[in-house]
Amino acid sequence: MKITIIWIGKTVVDEIETLTSDYIKRIKRCSITVKTIPNPKKKYPVDIQKIEECKEILKHIRSDDYVILLDEKGKSFTSLEFSAWIDKHQMNIKNMVFVIGGAYGFSAEMYDRANQKLSLSKMTFSHQIIRVIFAEQLYRAFSIIDNLPYHHE
Amino acid sequence: MKITIIWIGKTVVDEIETLTSDYIKRIKRCSITVKTIPNPKKKYPVDIQKIEECKEILKHIRSDDYVILLDEKGKSFTSLEFSAWIDKHQMNIKNMVFVIGGAYGFSAEMYDRANQKLSLSKMTFSHQIIRVIFAEQLYRAFSIIDNLPYHHE
Repeated sequence: MKITIIWIGKTVVDEIETLTSDYIKRIKRCSITVKTIPNPKKKYPVDIQKIEECKEILKHIRSDDYVILLDEKGKSFTSLEFSAWIDKHQMNIKNMVFVIGGAYGFSAEMYDRANQKLSLSKMTFSHQIIRVIFAEQLYRAFSIIDNLPYHHE
Repeated sequence: MKITIIWIGKTVVDEIETLTSDYIKRIKRCSITVKTIPNPKKKYPVDIQKIEECKEILKHIRSDDYVILLDEKGKSFTSLEFSAWIDKHQMNIKNMVFVIGGAYGFSAEMYDRANQKLSLSKMTFSHQIIRVIFAEQLYRAFSIIDNLPYHHE
């Protein structure tokens, strides 16, 4: 299985960029590609902006990708459950695509395409900070699968 | 109301230290003190270590402090609910103490002393990363109270 992470706009805070890439680099057992969709150049009203952003995201998604949106209203897992869920899907999914939306969330079209919604917390995190949090959970999930000590440190 | 944040051991990752202090500095309406309890010098078995760590933490807690443990089994809030909860307690609490435990969690004595347990997520985060996540939520909570645009950005 391959994993693609798609997010909107560059990681603007240097510290977040460093921490996020560091966790992603530590995942050895799976090829991970990060795709940064540039922020729309034109300034749109909020409702239009999310439609435009999601149109761009959808161009990078193939018909057989398994698409998971990081969404406050999604399914919440413990780290162990998330790890078990990834492990179970490794067998039958070729490419798992995690999408972290922009500040205004996802369009209806994006929700229609999604196979799953995942919530990391009931709380709202900045769309920058969520990148580190997610990268750490992904690294943690694979450490649990591989029985590495990280989850118990 | 004053806020004290107590955690075990220095923030060892520079990026986490920078991000965490940055959020804390941005909170203007409330005096925030961070107390770092040094890791025990002796190497104890896991069960003893958390008792020793919590003994040290308890030395910094006064009898009229309102103590909130960051704990996976705690109450979970949305960011709006957390903000409303802080706002409500501002009236009648002099010092709110948030405690972030070490890698092995809290002792029974610490649980006995706590007034509340707060869960930021069902997922387990590293005891370093949790510092940034919590600092961001605290900053977000006060931005909501003060009607700053941050929560809607």
